[in-house]
Amino acid sequence: MYAITIPEPGGPEALVWAEVPDPVPGEGEVLVEVVASAVNRADLLQRQGFYNPPPGASPYPGLECAGRITALGPGVSGWAVGDEVCALLSGGGYAEQVVVPAGQLLPVPEGVDLVTAAALPEVTSTVWSNVFMIAHLRPGETLLAHGGSSGIGTMAIQLAKAVGAKVAVTAGSKEKLEFCGELGADVLINYREQDFVEEIERATDGAGADVILDNMGAKYLDRNVRSLAVNGRLAIIGMQGGVKGELNIATLLNKRAAVTATSLRARPAAEKASIVAAVREHVWPLIGGGHVRPIVDRTVPMRDAAAAHRVLEESGHIGKVLLTR
Amino acid sequence: MYAITIPEPGGPEALVWAEVPDPVPGEGEVLVEVVASAVNRADLLQRQGFYNPPPGASPYPGLECAGRITALGPGVSGWAVGDEVCALLSGGGYAEQVVVPAGQLLPVPEGVDLVTAAALPEVTSTVWSNVFMIAHLRPGETLLAHGGSSGIGTMAIQLAKAVGAKVAVTAGSKEKLEFCGELGADVLINYREQDFVEEIERATDGAGADVILDNMGAKYLDRNVRSLAVNGRLAIIGMQGGVKGELNIATLLNKRAAVTATSLRARPAAEKASIVAAVREHVWPLIGGGHVRPIVDRTVPMRDAAAAHRVLEESGHIGKVLLTR
Repeated sequence: MYAITIPEPGGPEALVWAEVPDPVPGEGEVLVEVVASAVNRADLLQRQGFYNPPPGASPYPGLECAGRITALGPGVSGWAVGDEVCALLSGGGYAEQVVVPAGQLLPVPEGVDLVTAAALPEVTSTVWSNVFMIAHLRPGETLLAHGGSSGIGTMAIQLAKAVGAKVAVTAGSKEKLEFCGELGADVLINYREQDFVEEIERATDGAGADVILDNMGAKYLDRNVRSLAVNGRLAIIGMQGGVKGELNIATLLNKRAAVTATSLRARPAAEKASIVAAVREHVWPLIGGGHVRPIVDRTVPMRDAAAAHRVLEESGHIGKVLLTR
Repeated sequence: MYAITIPEPGGPEALVWAEVPDPVPGEGEVLVEVVASAVNRADLLQRQGFYNPPPGASPYPGLECAGRITALGPGVSGWAVGDEVCALLSGGGYAEQVVVPAGQLLPVPEGVDLVTAAALPEVTSTVWSNVFMIAHLRPGETLLAHGGSSGIGTMAIQLAKAVGAKVAVTAGSKEKLEFCGELGADVLINYREQDFVEEIERATDGAGADVILDNMGAKYLDRNVRSLAVNGRLAIIGMQGGVKGELNIATLLNKRAAVTATSLRARPAAEKASIVAAVREHVWPLIGGGHVRPIVDRTVPMRDAAAAHRVLEESGHIGKVLLTR
């Protein structure tokens, strides 16, 4: 088969469409013929040599895909050859075929076409596991989602609104914020022009955000902690603003607050399977019912993955960038 | 009545035994004639002017007591005049009488005398709420408790062992560590001579501590995060080593770990009541059954509270320092 390979780490041009050995499904795995994949920020880090695949994972980039099952490994039940699926991957989505542990498969939700389904596994799993399974966002609470127009952000807005929470977002342009507003976000903060700590304070009558979903890491750590409500939970899922930040423990203690940080990719298969099962139970019906939808910025041919990476690096997109065969 | 007052913040000599108005129980409160109270580090901060009582709390120090109910306010059920009790307080324990919300009362556990019961409310509530209600320590997991010979530490060792966890402690002397070992601690770390990060790594075959109970704050933050296991939980309850620390978010993220910080005193009455109810349900039977016992360093007459504060400042004690009438 062909796949996007990374012979040498570097810029987008480091991504090379090349012939590689066909993957073979092992115990509990299926083989999927990939129809579409999607770009995640982690792929850009992997391309640059900063985020190596975990042991056992495919060496090619791509943390999610949609496609059709073409073979079942031993011990797989509940899935059949020909099933249309999407899947959370540990790597290997930028390819014609990929091997997937059966616990990471999801059916294509009602009302979503097969290509668009590739936009769903990472954002739904990341948002559900962090905002709901870890931070337990409850109806009536306030969520602050940084990067509101990203794939993660657009899913966080919709899921939080669907459970009856109030949603504040940050983004870097009027156009992006307007889109967040159309998705249901209540409080729109332009981080280039406004101080999100002040805006959250104003929007919550001084109470603060109950949950913050953060992709900035160090750069926002102190401001995020200051923006938390009493009993607030800061869930960090990215470090686009650096790794080491100053934590004011007195502020955290006075608020009886929590800081968590997670990534999906490194989790053991059993944890991924339990997240995917929760997504299927809680998120899929919301998509099938038309309450939540995948947001796609554009689709790019998979062999031009370099162009797709440039889109993410320029941050002009809204929602997901898909790669199609 | 008489109480320890703080006319001017300062050293131990700032504590003055003086006549003050008798307190009167309001709706849902009882009046307790205090037989004993106990010293907490927060009292030392309050004496120095760094930790003012929350709104509505007694201005006198003392976050726990034991004694007898002498009057019931309106709307109190389940308690009677004459009952021997101990109680979690928002202040006012260093006094002849104190008013207590009924939800913060506990019966004196079986096998514990009334004076010694004053050693229990703060340490059991702090350890249970942090190590079990927030950090969910499970059987077979490893707890690292800093300050293992303190009141908090001695209770943390016993409760963690009672649920089947492995316990590591830090302390500053051979004598203190030996006492921790007698209480059941498995790993004894002298922080003056050993690096606790290395010792935890060795004791857990590189896995790290699942839960850390920390009273040092900033000074230990980076080392605590490095000592955590995957899915580890750092519960900060004190800042004896400073307020602002560097948090390595990449380390936290790679471990999918959590940092929480809490204090008991500032919590609303309803939260205190739910913690006290959980302590009565889960901890009291362990004390009544002889599996867990209050550790008392010494008792000091309440009017000499200054002497008791000096004991804590010199850190030579093991367990609680009680104040008796």
